[in-house]
Amino acid sequence: MTQPTDIEIARAATKHKIQAIGARLDIPEEALLPYGHDKAKVAQGFIDGLTDRPNGKLILVTAITPTPAGEGKTTTTVGLGDGLNRIGKRAAICIREASLGPCFGLKGGAAGGGHAQVIPMEDMNLHFTGDFHAITSAHNLLSAMIDNHIHWGNELQIDQRRVVWRRVMDMNDRALRDMVTSLGGAANGFPRQTGFDITVASEVMAILCLADDLADLQRRLGDIIVAYTREKEPIRARDLKADGAMTVLLRDAMQPNLVQTLENNPAFVHGGPFANIAHGCNSVISTRLALKLADYVVTEAGFGADLGAEKFMDIKCRKAGLEPDAVVLVATVRSLKMNGGVTKDDLSRENPGAVQQGCANLTRHLENLRGFGVPVVVAINRFTDDTDAELDVLRQAVEAEDTEVFMCNHWAEGSSGIEALSHRVASLADHRDTAFTLLYPDDMPLFEKIETVAKRIYRAEGVDADARIRGQLADWEAQGFGNLPVCMAKTQYSFSADPAARGAITGHRIPVREVRLSAGAGFVVVICGDIMTMPGLPRSPAAEGICLNGDNQVTGLF
Amino acid sequence: MTQPTDIEIARAATKHKIQAIGARLDIPEEALLPYGHDKAKVAQGFIDGLTDRPNGKLILVTAITPTPAGEGKTTTTVGLGDGLNRIGKRAAICIREASLGPCFGLKGGAAGGGHAQVIPMEDMNLHFTGDFHAITSAHNLLSAMIDNHIHWGNELQIDQRRVVWRRVMDMNDRALRDMVTSLGGAANGFPRQTGFDITVASEVMAILCLADDLADLQRRLGDIIVAYTREKEPIRARDLKADGAMTVLLRDAMQPNLVQTLENNPAFVHGGPFANIAHGCNSVISTRLALKLADYVVTEAGFGADLGAEKFMDIKCRKAGLEPDAVVLVATVRSLKMNGGVTKDDLSRENPGAVQQGCANLTRHLENLRGFGVPVVVAINRFTDDTDAELDVLRQAVEAEDTEVFMCNHWAEGSSGIEALSHRVASLADHRDTAFTLLYPDDMPLFEKIETVAKRIYRAEGVDADARIRGQLADWEAQGFGNLPVCMAKTQYSFSADPAARGAITGHRIPVREVRLSAGAGFVVVICGDIMTMPGLPRSPAAEGICLNGDNQVTGLF
Repeated sequence: MTQPTDIEIARAATKHKIQAIGARLDIPEEALLPYGHDKAKVAQGFIDGLTDRPNGKLILVTAITPTPAGEGKTTTTVGLGDGLNRIGKRAAICIREASLGPCFGLKGGAAGGGHAQVIPMEDMNLHFTGDFHAITSAHNLLSAMIDNHIHWGNELQIDQRRVVWRRVMDMNDRALRDMVTSLGGAANGFPRQTGFDITVASEVMAILCLADDLADLQRRLGDIIVAYTREKEPIRARDLKADGAMTVLLRDAMQPNLVQTLENNPAFVHGGPFANIAHGCNSVISTRLALKLADYVVTEAGFGADLGAEKFMDIKCRKAGLEPDAVVLVATVRSLKMNGGVTKDDLSRENPGAVQQGCANLTRHLENLRGFGVPVVVAINRFTDDTDAELDVLRQAVEAEDTEVFMCNHWAEGSSGIEALSHRVASLADHRDTAFTLLYPDDMPLFEKIETVAKRIYRAEGVDADARIRGQLADWEAQGFGNLPVCMAKTQYSFSADPAARGAITGHRIPVREVRLSAGAGFVVVICGDIMTMPGLPRSPAAEGICLNGDNQVTGLF
Repeated sequence: MTQPTDIEIARAATKHKIQAIGARLDIPEEALLPYGHDKAKVAQGFIDGLTDRPNGKLILVTAITPTPAGEGKTTTTVGLGDGLNRIGKRAAICIREASLGPCFGLKGGAAGGGHAQVIPMEDMNLHFTGDFHAITSAHNLLSAMIDNHIHWGNELQIDQRRVVWRRVMDMNDRALRDMVTSLGGAANGFPRQTGFDITVASEVMAILCLADDLADLQRRLGDIIVAYTREKEPIRARDLKADGAMTVLLRDAMQPNLVQTLENNPAFVHGGPFANIAHGCNSVISTRLALKLADYVVTEAGFGADLGAEKFMDIKCRKAGLEPDAVVLVATVRSLKMNGGVTKDDLSRENPGAVQQGCANLTRHLENLRGFGVPVVVAINRFTDDTDAELDVLRQAVEAEDTEVFMCNHWAEGSSGIEALSHRVASLADHRDTAFTLLYPDDMPLFEKIETVAKRIYRAEGVDADARIRGQLADWEAQGFGNLPVCMAKTQYSFSADPAARGAITGHRIPVREVRLSAGAGFVVVICGDIMTMPGLPRSPAAEGICLNGDNQVTGLF
């Protein structure tokens, strides 16, 4: 018997009407703005009325240093949410929305997998409720207003060589990375070199995911620095009077989306900033909403714990006043083997020795996470070709760290495969007796913040940054941006900046290539090594095989 | 007492739930895919089940040569729909969706006006149900796949100098009109001069509006010619295997949108191709749906009757097998004065003599419309500063043509102001005894088709086209495209190609500057004079004044 594919499992599921899912969290029908029968936005007016309610417990799912295929963070987030519901808890999950563009490159699918999925998965991987399109529009309106302002006389004296705001598109299109616009004569404006990023890399995306409410959204949008004058004075979106119209474009997008898991449990899917040049977490507004409505909220953060969890703590929790009550570190035998030196093509071959070696990566992530003052357990996301010998090695390594480890089989079995973890996480979150601790205080100088992340999380010996970068950081401190957190943009495949250096590398240094100020989102992006903000399509893009079948169902997308 | 604004009137209206609006046309609740509580898409499965039903009567609303502010075609379409419902008829209207970009330039609003509007107007002028975003995505996926194909080896031998498929964005952004992309080295592809058009100018938009169903949509998308080889052989979207994924992106967008008028009557709002380089009509699928559900369907076509009505007949009706049962020609005193030689600033001053002069424009449109073999009446869309003397001149001029004329005050009074017209139009449509006649047969050579429109509709003495254009048309005929209709792109302000030549000009010639083949949409675009496919923003864009008010309502958009 062949294992059904994700999409086959998803289509076989019995979907409940979205109003019934909302009712599970006591969301009244009129507070749900439906998008079809299986998706809804939660109305802002309803959200506004919840402020006095107590919060549920917040559980973060993160992972060890991943393989390119990922370790199943989303799958485990979905599984744990279903598991908590299975054992009688009132639980919801909060995950990110998927980006459209990459679905046409390599295989898509950002809605979990196997028997731990969020549905309707086709919609989630296509236009969903239009949030990303709204972000694209708001971003590009600002872009158009910049060039338009220059065209009509440039009253603000924008230095055309110092326009830092690009355009965005939710498409993998390498041709748009670098271009000269406004060719063709005076009617088309002043020629200028610029380019497009993918929408998930837009600062507008990060802002939407960090804003408290519509007023805060507009304030942050207004704060965006789009360009500088010849005297290097910043020009903001507010100076162009773009913030109001951008807010109007984002009004509906600010409302969290409600869908359901395969087991008909509530799932909030809202926002999806890049995990490199942004913070890689779902929206603050949806996490807060879920905490008001559910007793347990399971969420995740992009990439491994060195990047995702660190940013979740030091950016999202810091800014939103959130505290996780428990952390689940997801590991797979495959990723441990890769961290133990095995190449991608050999990952399916049994190799307990490599697992043993790879465990150094896991234990370092454990140590890092404990430093934030939250209880941590390890979830093994079981794959069908894992052997008992490999699993034993992994279990023993975790237990040697005085940490509990749970074998999880939610991918194959749904919530029944993750009951033990669910019980333990609920109990840990209920009884957290440690104090949540951020990695660094707001008032630490920016460069010291970078060093702190590099030394304490990446275990580097130091940070390399030239005088230009240190000078830029000093300038921003002088301008009042010194209290911002740093958003590290680094490869997710290593604790170092070298994607080939697996395991638990030591003795390395972190090279800072560039720093960027996201004044609206409220962080300083620190770019360590190459970072891609507009992906390309592969030689044979997935798009070539995507089509509707005879029943007008999507095929080839997953 | 000051007259309330359109948005004040719209907000004061009592909206019914969209399911109740659907019930008026016996659309079952499960066949409506809601978008919030006041918008829905009609499910494809339901539409598929209607084919055996008889069709209602189709009524086209068109206009004389307009002023830049327009003559109230949409307002009259909405008013007539409400009027037909008022007199007890089962009626629906079919109009186009609004483009987002232009709303941030000059004032927006494409949902009628006064007491003849479609609601929710904010949504209709912003993201609505996401159709235009889906079209943008589908268009740009194809663009990305073209450059990607060339980047990875160019197996199809696309001549990079002959890529005719550009990119689109639903934004007024002059900087994107003309650009060089793929700068920055080998990883970004081959540099190439190209640009963006606004989304409503995309051939994908025209295709969506002409396609019979999803299978026809995919066939037409596959037929799009994106480039040529060095040997001038066409390369199609199908050759790039893009048609399937594009269809997937457009699956939801193909379903017509249902909203309501201020008087809670059903309105289908679907598709919105440019009225110059495309045919300027709402979708065939929504018009056909409305004809199956209602006894009377009122629709409109962009620009004046020389452009909009001609394309409605010769492109939309020809391709879809539709026939209008009656035509309403909208005239205003203001537009007659402008056609009579009055400048824009003097339009509010009484001038019966100018009205008299301008009537030559109206009578020519009347003659043209009668040529299609359908009954025509004139609706005077009354403005508050029209005087009795002016209205009398207008009325007498129409009656001298043996044509009925109706004073309509739906803008100020809603359906009670348009009862007489409603009765007459219903009766005319019920008893049409003339044969609908297209202007030219399919098998007429392309250049003769152009001459036929120019001479019989524009009353030009002839057409000027150089050897290059005639040669291009001959090539297309040799390739099998000779049976396509022509889609004339010409100024809407004159029967000639000169926007300053008002009234009923004679003795002019039509210069053809360029011809383009829309092989997927199925027409040959004939460009006469300058034509803009990417608008710019004005010196003080409307966006600067658009924001949310204290109640999170949109202000400044209208």
